[in-house]
Amino acid sequence: MNEPRPSPVYYLGIDLGGTNIKSGVVDDEGRALSHVSLPTQADHGGEAGIASLAEAGRRAVEASGVGWDGIAAVGLGTPGTMDIDAGMLLEPPNLPGWENLPIRARLEEKLGKPTVLQNDGNAAAFGEYWAGAGRGARSEVMFTLGTGVGCGIVIDGVILQGRHSHGGECGHIIVQAVNGRRCSCGGIGHLEAYASATAVARRALEALEAETTPSSLRTIDPGQLDSRAVFMAAQAGDAIAARIMSETAYYLAVGAVSLMHTIDPDVVLFGGGMIAAGSPFLTTIQKHVKELAFPIPAARTRIEFALLGGDAGFIGAAGWARALHGSGKK
Amino acid sequence: MNEPRPSPVYYLGIDLGGTNIKSGVVDDEGRALSHVSLPTQADHGGEAGIASLAEAGRRAVEASGVGWDGIAAVGLGTPGTMDIDAGMLLEPPNLPGWENLPIRARLEEKLGKPTVLQNDGNAAAFGEYWAGAGRGARSEVMFTLGTGVGCGIVIDGVILQGRHSHGGECGHIIVQAVNGRRCSCGGIGHLEAYASATAVARRALEALEAETTPSSLRTIDPGQLDSRAVFMAAQAGDAIAARIMSETAYYLAVGAVSLMHTIDPDVVLFGGGMIAAGSPFLTTIQKHVKELAFPIPAARTRIEFALLGGDAGFIGAAGWARALHGSGKK
Repeated sequence: MNEPRPSPVYYLGIDLGGTNIKSGVVDDEGRALSHVSLPTQADHGGEAGIASLAEAGRRAVEASGVGWDGIAAVGLGTPGTMDIDAGMLLEPPNLPGWENLPIRARLEEKLGKPTVLQNDGNAAAFGEYWAGAGRGARSEVMFTLGTGVGCGIVIDGVILQGRHSHGGECGHIIVQAVNGRRCSCGGIGHLEAYASATAVARRALEALEAETTPSSLRTIDPGQLDSRAVFMAAQAGDAIAARIMSETAYYLAVGAVSLMHTIDPDVVLFGGGMIAAGSPFLTTIQKHVKELAFPIPAARTRIEFALLGGDAGFIGAAGWARALHGSGKK
Repeated sequence: MNEPRPSPVYYLGIDLGGTNIKSGVVDDEGRALSHVSLPTQADHGGEAGIASLAEAGRRAVEASGVGWDGIAAVGLGTPGTMDIDAGMLLEPPNLPGWENLPIRARLEEKLGKPTVLQNDGNAAAFGEYWAGAGRGARSEVMFTLGTGVGCGIVIDGVILQGRHSHGGECGHIIVQAVNGRRCSCGGIGHLEAYASATAVARRALEALEAETTPSSLRTIDPGQLDSRAVFMAAQAGDAIAARIMSETAYYLAVGAVSLMHTIDPDVVLFGGGMIAAGSPFLTTIQKHVKELAFPIPAARTRIEFALLGGDAGFIGAAGWARALHGSGKK
């Protein structure tokens, strides 16, 4: 029989961040055909934001050379408190004026395609699972190290989104129950309070203040000192910076091990800006995981860096649209 | 039409502990029709152990009044390191001479019925999910507070057993990354090191030694002081005992919240001998959970005691046999 060859199918992914909206068209294998970035202008509020999301999506489709007819579905990843199944943003802390916004339905109206919503950490984890460092794994936990510590969990192709859309919020597991640091969310002793890029800079500043050891970090204006400066100084042999990075790797290993003793995935990934600290940082995390985990997961669980960089969010959002509305449907 | 009424179907559950083997026949609704307990005699080794497991199972069937023909499948819950899919005990710490034992296949030979293996914490969690305090929930996390802290996770009717049979080993999540107590497993800062019955007794003894406050616990021989003595003294108003129980509730809340920010289940259950401490203990755990968790899971996640007592393990093992080989099959 001569069946007509089916047209290729594509998905549009959009990743809403506090600063930028990233968008791209993704093919059925998880390859990005276009990359668009627009400023979020979060302070213009939710309605303006939805217009910006739609605009980013349209530009991504245009840049891809794929016509709108080729787009099967749209995936949107967003930060903040949400009701994933209802498609609602509830109280996203970094998006004032976006409260109680039916963001999925509004974007679906604008773009005229079936649209899915996910948490940004979940979307990035799904991107790596589908098309990045988690490819081929059955289960994956991913931590995204940025301003905060994002997280996502995928088991057998399904995002663990939880009963109240709080699944995989593992930046907020408690790693120090007594005498813990305060987290940006207000909680005490959370992983994010130790291991986000922000926390690394803050811990370095505290060390500089508390100690008299000479350090190249002292030449940097405290307001300018960021995690990048800390890991660059560590690589150059600065003792305080090296200790801060080593302790950060330890805290990340603590987080990884708690997830290995809970989810027990094939692979634990670390992504986000801080993985620019490079392979010595990864090696230190891996060393601590081997010391802290039970022997079998310690020997068998892969601990790796993510591969998709800043594209993981929109690729994963597109992949989730594919999982629910497209060729990846179960 | 007059179809023949199908015969009722039953499942045999067996729960292997370090001290006792518990077994019972369970009907299709999760009700136990018999209860048998035999000594494990762990030091007699694995082959003798398999004979005891089979004997306990046979007696449970006999006591139930259900014939062997009515038993569709057998479920076995065991402690220790295992390969669940392979049906193997690997290195169970409390069962010397049971190493590398193909326990599922050997029991299946003895009893002549399809047999499934599960971790004991997972089995207990599944028992409560099917027929106890988790009934009607879509997802559940359960902690069993005994000599150690057992745990099990069930999501949409499936036990989260993990890639290397280490899923739901949440007694060994790290709650105190720096200056943590040593766990019986050798790890540092694990939940079990703070909140097991053993840990409660040990922390009480340390407090009695470190402080001069009068305490009714000082009248107890230190070798006899157990968690029950601590919570009885707390109920009678003893200050040191009350503080130990209050801190224990806090650590359990820390564990519950880390799981709420990871799994985000409908319900978190606490079972095991220590829940005899009663409703003031539960109320204190609930209070700390409300303080420590994100607002939505804090408001909505049920935090409760388990209902099935020491039967949860064999009921859950039977339920898992039903899920894989019987009327609960998906």
